[in-house]
Amino acid sequence: MALKKTPVKGTMDMLPGDMRLREHVIGMIKESYSRYGFMEIETPVMEHIENLTSKQGGDNEKLIFKIMKRGADLMRALEKEDGELADSGLRYDLTLPLARYYSNNKDVLPSPFKALQIGNVWRADKPQKGRFRQFTQCDIDILGDSTNLAEIELIGATSDMLRTIFSEAGISEFTVHLNDRRFLIAAAKNAGFAEEAIEGILITLDKYDKIGLSGIREELLSNGESEETVDKYLELYTDLENVTIESFTKNISAEYLGEKEINELKEILACAGSMAGDGVKIKFDPTLVRGMGYYTGPIFEVTLDDYNFSVAGGGRYDKMIGRFTGQDTPATGFSIGFERIITILKDTLPEGYKLKGDNVAILIGKKVPLDKKVEIINEAKEQRLTGKTVLIQPMQKNMGHQIEMLEKEGYTEFKKIFE
Amino acid sequence: MALKKTPVKGTMDMLPGDMRLREHVIGMIKESYSRYGFMEIETPVMEHIENLTSKQGGDNEKLIFKIMKRGADLMRALEKEDGELADSGLRYDLTLPLARYYSNNKDVLPSPFKALQIGNVWRADKPQKGRFRQFTQCDIDILGDSTNLAEIELIGATSDMLRTIFSEAGISEFTVHLNDRRFLIAAAKNAGFAEEAIEGILITLDKYDKIGLSGIREELLSNGESEETVDKYLELYTDLENVTIESFTKNISAEYLGEKEINELKEILACAGSMAGDGVKIKFDPTLVRGMGYYTGPIFEVTLDDYNFSVAGGGRYDKMIGRFTGQDTPATGFSIGFERIITILKDTLPEGYKLKGDNVAILIGKKVPLDKKVEIINEAKEQRLTGKTVLIQPMQKNMGHQIEMLEKEGYTEFKKIFE
Repeated sequence: MALKKTPVKGTMDMLPGDMRLREHVIGMIKESYSRYGFMEIETPVMEHIENLTSKQGGDNEKLIFKIMKRGADLMRALEKEDGELADSGLRYDLTLPLARYYSNNKDVLPSPFKALQIGNVWRADKPQKGRFRQFTQCDIDILGDSTNLAEIELIGATSDMLRTIFSEAGISEFTVHLNDRRFLIAAAKNAGFAEEAIEGILITLDKYDKIGLSGIREELLSNGESEETVDKYLELYTDLENVTIESFTKNISAEYLGEKEINELKEILACAGSMAGDGVKIKFDPTLVRGMGYYTGPIFEVTLDDYNFSVAGGGRYDKMIGRFTGQDTPATGFSIGFERIITILKDTLPEGYKLKGDNVAILIGKKVPLDKKVEIINEAKEQRLTGKTVLIQPMQKNMGHQIEMLEKEGYTEFKKIFE
Repeated sequence: MALKKTPVKGTMDMLPGDMRLREHVIGMIKESYSRYGFMEIETPVMEHIENLTSKQGGDNEKLIFKIMKRGADLMRALEKEDGELADSGLRYDLTLPLARYYSNNKDVLPSPFKALQIGNVWRADKPQKGRFRQFTQCDIDILGDSTNLAEIELIGATSDMLRTIFSEAGISEFTVHLNDRRFLIAAAKNAGFAEEAIEGILITLDKYDKIGLSGIREELLSNGESEETVDKYLELYTDLENVTIESFTKNISAEYLGEKEINELKEILACAGSMAGDGVKIKFDPTLVRGMGYYTGPIFEVTLDDYNFSVAGGGRYDKMIGRFTGQDTPATGFSIGFERIITILKDTLPEGYKLKGDNVAILIGKKVPLDKKVEIINEAKEQRLTGKTVLIQPMQKNMGHQIEMLEKEGYTEFKKIFE
């Protein structure tokens, strides 16, 4: 029986042009972040199934690719009713593996530790345009720093990196949205919502971009919240055009939100704004929620003004590492939507991403004798030592097609040796 | 319950120093090979289970990490006695995925196609020192070229690449061993072994380095081969110090080995020898077998003279792509033992692989006011724009330890801002 030619459902074969673009972008990311002192690390793609299913991953836990036990372990699991057949799974994000990694290695790492991770993650999601089951994520995280210097560095570094990348695509403007998980909770409590209703309130507020304030009002009322509470809550969100940290928090009782938290966010806004530079707007956005329940402090998201989606997001998660070590460790991170950035850049390069520079292809005919071949090879060797790309290939019957395909990759000079 | 801190059995967390070394080596590999016109590609880490278990992978097929079916598919499989519970698995090498990739994409790729792949592979092997369950492979392959120009380029490019990498470790000498699967079969047939015994004969010959000619003789006799046949066979291998392609093949009947095959290997030896350059010996080695049954022509392996192991190996496999397409496509490849190279380089760098250049760490005390912070951040921004690495961190209580850990990573300059 013939073997299967297509990649596994929802995954991609990367063509040379795709790879050149990806490698180029990865190079820019590494270069940008290394200047801020982020250090690259790597974790295995497999994680213990117990860690993956520990409620740190939200809905992603439903999408795990599980790896089967082997040998006697598998036999034992199959014999049991409801035995766990998997002992590990493919990671669905880079945050949980990072928390495990830091817990395992913190004694030999600097503190605070600035980590850069670029790697694939896997989710058994329904494949659709632009959504894959294997895709690349790129995260920076600062572990062991409880001060807002961590957020300032994350936002400054990411603004720098995105500006570098997007300038190639002619995109010079983007917005960093800033909020704080503690502001979100305080605003809800201040309005009078019950503690246990807050997660649900935030899920509704997260739909602001789609349904607007009136949609939020309707949804909260239909969930049984009182008109008085809902209206008191939404009053905070009425003048979003001109909202500032001051104007938003002055209506929240000090019982729910302290001066310290307010000042921390003001400092982030001031310092990150000064770092971010031309074209980058940094604004307080009280409607920003971010889905993951593990956030504990400042949260942020970058949107492209010309496209209607976010290209990066993150926040502080001070409670996750404690799940591994028994002791909380401050942590905050920024995750870059690598595949979205690639999609945007691809759109601006309809011809695909070619080899750079002058590249020579030498096509050798069938009649070329050995000593001539040796001569060609030695000449090519000299050119290659100077850093030039020299391709040596047998001349094909359909030389026109051969050359056309090489031109598509970026070859500019062709030498045909017939005999 | 606390989560598990250690990585999954047999896998590694890469520390920053490890990553710097790996990235440095990967950079050299990409740079070297790109000058020969190899184009980087990537395949998904998951492959269809049918492909992985199609007898292309030899013993590696026993070591597959299988990925479980999900949802209704899994339910159906569990209900069946002996139902296949997995629909895919992690790739155990890069060759099978490449064959699938080429079959799937050949219409949009240049022909011949020179591919470079660097990626992880997974084998559920018993973990031991230097052997891991997730490890990096690095392969170059030329697909669609039936001439020995392909082997010449593979060997020339790999010699170049290894010399560049090893020169840093003070290793300037290595040997490329060259043989041909067709020579191995012809030698066995010529001695009088039965067709169906040949695979077994080659498994014994492959032990030459460990058991020598006398050990081979003993094993073949104890397997029931006649003394006359065995002695006729081993006569070919008596003068291995001085053996040449001529001296070896002149004793093999033309019925088993043609002039064409002999000349092809001679040309590879001559041309690759001329390309390889200083310190690289290329020699005909009639005892070289290479394990995989899929090889069909010239095979090769690189050994380090000072270490007793190989660092790269490969050969021609003209029949694999046909398993996907129904039509044979010439193919030959070289696989680099990336982890072994890393091990060798690590041994020569006892202090670990540090950040290069002058790197500044600015440690900020608790009393530093906001406007001073903004000033520091803006100064750092200017320095970062010039390409310098500038780390900004809160000063820790144990500043001595903080500085020591940063020095370990390669920071050379420390600025302490107290207020």
